[in-house]
Amino acid sequence: MLSTIERVLVLSPHADDAALACGGIMARLADRGAEMMVQFMTVDGFHHYGTDGGTTYRQRLDEIEAVAKLLGFSWDIAYGDQDLIEKLDTVPKRDLVDLFEKRINELRPDLVLIPSGADYDQDHVATFETAVAALRPIAPVFGKWLVPHVLVYESPKIMWWVDAIPRPEVFVDISDVIDRKLEALAAYDTQARPSPHIRCEEAVTALACLRGKEIGVEHAEAFKVLRSVLS
Amino acid sequence: MLSTIERVLVLSPHADDAALACGGIMARLADRGAEMMVQFMTVDGFHHYGTDGGTTYRQRLDEIEAVAKLLGFSWDIAYGDQDLIEKLDTVPKRDLVDLFEKRINELRPDLVLIPSGADYDQDHVATFETAVAALRPIAPVFGKWLVPHVLVYESPKIMWWVDAIPRPEVFVDISDVIDRKLEALAAYDTQARPSPHIRCEEAVTALACLRGKEIGVEHAEAFKVLRSVLS
Amino acid sequence: MLSTIERVLVLSPHADDAALACGGIMARLADRGAEMMVQFMTVDGFHHYGTDGGTTYRQRLDEIEAVAKLLGFSWDIAYGDQDLIEKLDTVPKRDLVDLFEKRINELRPDLVLIPSGADYDQDHVATFETAVAALRPIAPVFGKWLVPHVLVYESPKIMWWVDAIPRPEVFVDISDVIDRKLEALAAYDTQARPSPHIRCEEAVTALACLRGKEIGVEHAEAFKVLRSVLS
Amino acid sequence: MLSTIERVLVLSPHADDAALACGGIMARLADRGAEMMVQFMTVDGFHHYGTDGGTTYRQRLDEIEAVAKLLGFSWDIAYGDQDLIEKLDTVPKRDLVDLFEKRINELRPDLVLIPSGADYDQDHVATFETAVAALRPIAPVFGKWLVPHVLVYESPKIMWWVDAIPRPEVFVDISDVIDRKLEALAAYDTQARPSPHIRCEEAVTALACLRGKEIGVEHAEAFKVLRSVLS
Amino acid sequence: MLSTIERVLVLSPHADDAALACGGIMARLADRGAEMMVQFMTVDGFHHYGTDGGTTYRQRLDEIEAVAKLLGFSWDIAYGDQDLIEKLDTVPKRDLVDLFEKRINELRPDLVLIPSGADYDQDHVATFETAVAALRPIAPVFGKWLVPHVLVYESPKIMWWVDAIPRPEVFVDISDVIDRKLEALAAYDTQARPSPHIRCEEAVTALACLRGKEIGVEHAEAFKVLRSVLS
Amino acid sequence: MLSTIERVLVLSPHADDAALACGGIMARLADRGAEMMVQFMTVDGFHHYGTDGGTTYRQRLDEIEAVAKLLGFSWDIAYGDQDLIEKLDTVPKRDLVDLFEKRINELRPDLVLIPSGADYDQDHVATFETAVAALRPIAPVFGKWLVPHVLVYESPKIMWWVDAIPRPEVFVDISDVIDRKLEALAAYDTQARPSPHIRCEEAVTALACLRGKEIGVEHAEAFKVLRSVLS
Repeated sequence: MLSTIERVLVLSPHADDAALACGGIMARLADRGAEMMVQFMTVDGFHHYGTDGGTTYRQRLDEIEAVAKLLGFSWDIAYGDQDLIEKLDTVPKRDLVDLFEKRINELRPDLVLIPSGADYDQDHVATFETAVAALRPIAPVFGKWLVPHVLVYESPKIMWWVDAIPRPEVFVDISDVIDRKLEALAAYDTQARPSPHIRCEEAVTALACLRGKEIGVEHAEAFKVLRSVLS
Repeated sequence: MLSTIERVLVLSPHADDAALACGGIMARLADRGAEMMVQFMTVDGFHHYGTDGGTTYRQRLDEIEAVAKLLGFSWDIAYGDQDLIEKLDTVPKRDLVDLFEKRINELRPDLVLIPSGADYDQDHVATFETAVAALRPIAPVFGKWLVPHVLVYESPKIMWWVDAIPRPEVFVDISDVIDRKLEALAAYDTQARPSPHIRCEEAVTALACLRGKEIGVEHAEAFKVLRSVLS
Repeated sequence: MLSTIERVLVLSPHADDAALACGGIMARLADRGAEMMVQFMTVDGFHHYGTDGGTTYRQRLDEIEAVAKLLGFSWDIAYGDQDLIEKLDTVPKRDLVDLFEKRINELRPDLVLIPSGADYDQDHVATFETAVAALRPIAPVFGKWLVPHVLVYESPKIMWWVDAIPRPEVFVDISDVIDRKLEALAAYDTQARPSPHIRCEEAVTALACLRGKEIGVEHAEAFKVLRSVLS
Repeated sequence: MLSTIERVLVLSPHADDAALACGGIMARLADRGAEMMVQFMTVDGFHHYGTDGGTTYRQRLDEIEAVAKLLGFSWDIAYGDQDLIEKLDTVPKRDLVDLFEKRINELRPDLVLIPSGADYDQDHVATFETAVAALRPIAPVFGKWLVPHVLVYESPKIMWWVDAIPRPEVFVDISDVIDRKLEALAAYDTQARPSPHIRCEEAVTALACLRGKEIGVEHAEAFKVLRSVLS
Repeated sequence: MLSTIERVLVLSPHADDAALACGGIMARLADRGAEMMVQFMTVDGFHHYGTDGGTTYRQRLDEIEAVAKLLGFSWDIAYGDQDLIEKLDTVPKRDLVDLFEKRINELRPDLVLIPSGADYDQDHVATFETAVAALRPIAPVFGKWLVPHVLVYESPKIMWWVDAIPRPEVFVDISDVIDRKLEALAAYDTQARPSPHIRCEEAVTALACLRGKEIGVEHAEAFKVLRSVLS
Repeated sequence: MLSTIERVLVLSPHADDAALACGGIMARLADRGAEMMVQFMTVDGFHHYGTDGGTTYRQRLDEIEAVAKLLGFSWDIAYGDQDLIEKLDTVPKRDLVDLFEKRINELRPDLVLIPSGADYDQDHVATFETAVAALRPIAPVFGKWLVPHVLVYESPKIMWWVDAIPRPEVFVDISDVIDRKLEALAAYDTQARPSPHIRCEEAVTALACLRGKEIGVEHAEAFKVLRSVLS
């Protein structure tokens, strides 16, 4: 089915979420020639625990550019350098829905990849909730593109949660491209932190290993499906 | 039990939600002489996919008035012509709770009908969440009306969701009044769209057909119950 | 993606469940030349409400044969004429798991369609639960076929349930084949009952209409996905 | 709405479950002249922790008879003195469904009260699951009575569970009859145990106190609704 | 395990939530010499149903001070006398997360007690959601304190909810200190209201009685655990 | 808290489940001198995919004995060499409950570790469900031991499931003992299978790595808590 995907839109709350969660499927889709766009939501020099506080917006842009080349995507930042990291809850939802609908109607993607809403991070929640609104089903005859495949990605950090963990049902074998995924992750080097950080390479690899075993391969990425129209 | 209902409050995020979701029970209650008020939350000339962009606030008011006559309710609009459609998430929740409590304490309804919170639409979510707060149980002796029956209505669009679909447990046979419900729906003619729109007459009828079969009749409306005090 | 499916196994607790729930996708797959097998679990002359009590096992076999020609599948009955309808809970689960594993390893299906376990009917529950066990992921190198696509089908009757209704995420447009689905349903004529029976043609059509609107087409079938390995 | 209930069927896995969970609503319905039948599932001299091991079947029957007079119901025992307490999981479900359908079609109740399936006790689970099957909706024209109101009762012990606790939505003020409920409970004196037993009078009263506060009265019983057809 | 707890942080949306929900465990921890801090979120002269409208901020502070002495905690108010009661949804979440992280990194608590997010009250929801974000797991080597024990408290009012009730799994016997808990509750005398108010002493005692029976004691407090690192 | 645990009962459906899921916490508890008993449910020469079909009951006993020495536990097999593997659903639940209650009342454990019921394997489900019944709370004064801590263990295979995955909340750092856990696993060498089997050492290590990161350490085991009485 990957072979039928021609256009992909990835919604990434922050700079490294896309690579962290779906760098593998992106590498595979890029290899098959899919047109891929990443919509980053907020990017700036925000300080994270265990990272060097001196990160600049410029550095973050350079990192994104490097990863874009590695994984083969075009990109846009909705709120760049506006001190809105962890503040998407203060943006009216209609603005985010409007932005997403614009992207969807322009790109007419076969596949949209979105973050989970079962996340403690308000930017991920805002991105998820407004993506769901923007992806509501309206027949194309009424002027809105109906995206046939909508998948929710995961990463190690979503295990910190207040309820049962949504079980992913869709799997992609990334055994052949996991090195490229880890390379992409490393390219966000202002964000890199060693084990036992929840985002470290060991954790990302462990999750890929577990997901792989669920389909009898070495490494996989897994997704929850919100909609999949088979044709 | 319908025969014991004397006063009804319906919370309708937008102009057509009430008729779309509970036009049937409203018609039946009106026939039995119940006093019914619809609190619309936001109404203005907002553009929707597949509708004529030239809708005006005046047109929407005329439509509401026509439906009010057909279904027999009085009405009020909380935020009329203020460009707040799909922006109720920006209104402080306390304001909405205060508004609902005022209505509840004034009208002292036996039954309140509210939209589902399991909805991608931020206005529906805001209406639901604040309704739940306003309907919290406080004994009447402390000065707040305790609404004995609170039901959550549904419509075809709530099938687009991120989790299991809440199962409605309360059913009302609308076989005899479905024509009037569809007439009410048609009266919102700036909003009418043909099949296969999620809101089309065919979809509304199909849902009524399914709900009807669940209780062995031709057509029904179904509701999730939040509270029902039997007396 | 339908075009890549070559071999399909459908688990049908009773004679008409497969046609009722997934007659549409089966018709589409048959048209594309997929090899399709239906494993019926229990078939006999069991009496149902509203049907003629005089049904015989022979009649049920004839009906199955007629539908098999219409929808293009081969078939087998696990427990034929053994008075086990509504008694699969009395069969040791290991027996059912063994049976399913045998079928899966023989046929090596790309797609398995199974009934929902969120059902009040003990035969559906037993079929679902043991199917899940039989479909557990073991890498093929260890001697067990790993089915890449596992979908759970639905029908109007599963709305009678004790909890939220699992939301289907996978959709197939059946607008062009719904007539054939209804013809298959009618071919089980010992089971046919008019509206407002939960299984009547009107109810089946209404569900297809609603599911269709969720993807912007006239009629669709919808499924919950347990596993989908994209390749 | 209680005033419209004319015939009630209560399913009670063991001798004291009905009084423990719904003695209050039963007292109120009896006062209004409703015809009430309790179907006990298994009764025998089974030993429970903290009770006198010498209980006999005869004693249990005498207790039931005393409570039947107090609360005003007729009764039947499905499996009396057959050493089947805590063994209903070994009875084929079809037998239980058949039994319940027979009762339902004979009595044609307006209201059926059933135990929760969210219970660790296999007899409660078997009673619940088969009751749900027996209560599935089939239009009366096909020869099966469609029970308009189905409520699930609760008692203090169901707090020991493996998941979230189903929230009851239907409430009945039992302030005026709680004494009679406690009297009924006390009449099962082979089963009576003092605080801090989970089934003690203090626990039953505490639950009634909490449920009462949820509707602004002193004491109430609460129920989860599976179906309520308003007419 | 209580004996190993040395430092405790309690998040209390309003002045009386901490005492109402966890006054018992606080009394027990105080008796063992734990250092305890309560972070109140919003306190002012806000009017509640059934209370005297003339409450002042000064009165609320005096009440807090009295309870602090009784239960042995230090305290801070995040938003005092700013008319923000029931308006925490209007505060950017990042501000609340920053505040909580500051407290956590300063106090380095072994145990944090937080309100439930399954609550209709927007201040409780905001406190819960941001607490979860602030408590996300980052290894201490990266500069953030990892709280080993995070418990969610309950009170009678959270029974008014729209879904199943999260089941508490952690219990503390408060039989010996329930009098002190009720004394603390009474000390908030601008808030005290008699039965049948949802917050009355009878309701609080009834919940403690039920929770106690779940572990075989007279009275207990119960909590849902979000994280517990055993060492 | 581990230091206060003196007696532990582990319920293990099959021979290797205990080591696979909780070998780490067992090693830590053994090091602290806890008395530990493992109740195996069914053990025989049952054939599994990817293992040598010639396994004998004798071999399985020898493996258990070796692991018992390594991890320091005594043990018992409920159904040894009776061809009951994957057939515990055919054993009356009362028999299993009686067995567990006997063990609990004899050993009076502080901690019981049980398998998850969210598992496709009927032996795991039967063990879980009956364990929950046997662990229901009855005050000790009535003659039944009330186990203060009940934890549900996990392993990689429970990711194959039909619903959301229960999130474990209790964590134990096993960084120092993971080698011993893997050694125990290897000692079940009739069951050992290489990657990418769901049970391989790589998968077990990956899960430990992920759970470790959730509490900021290298490796951990995680558990869902059913009850924890703090004292």
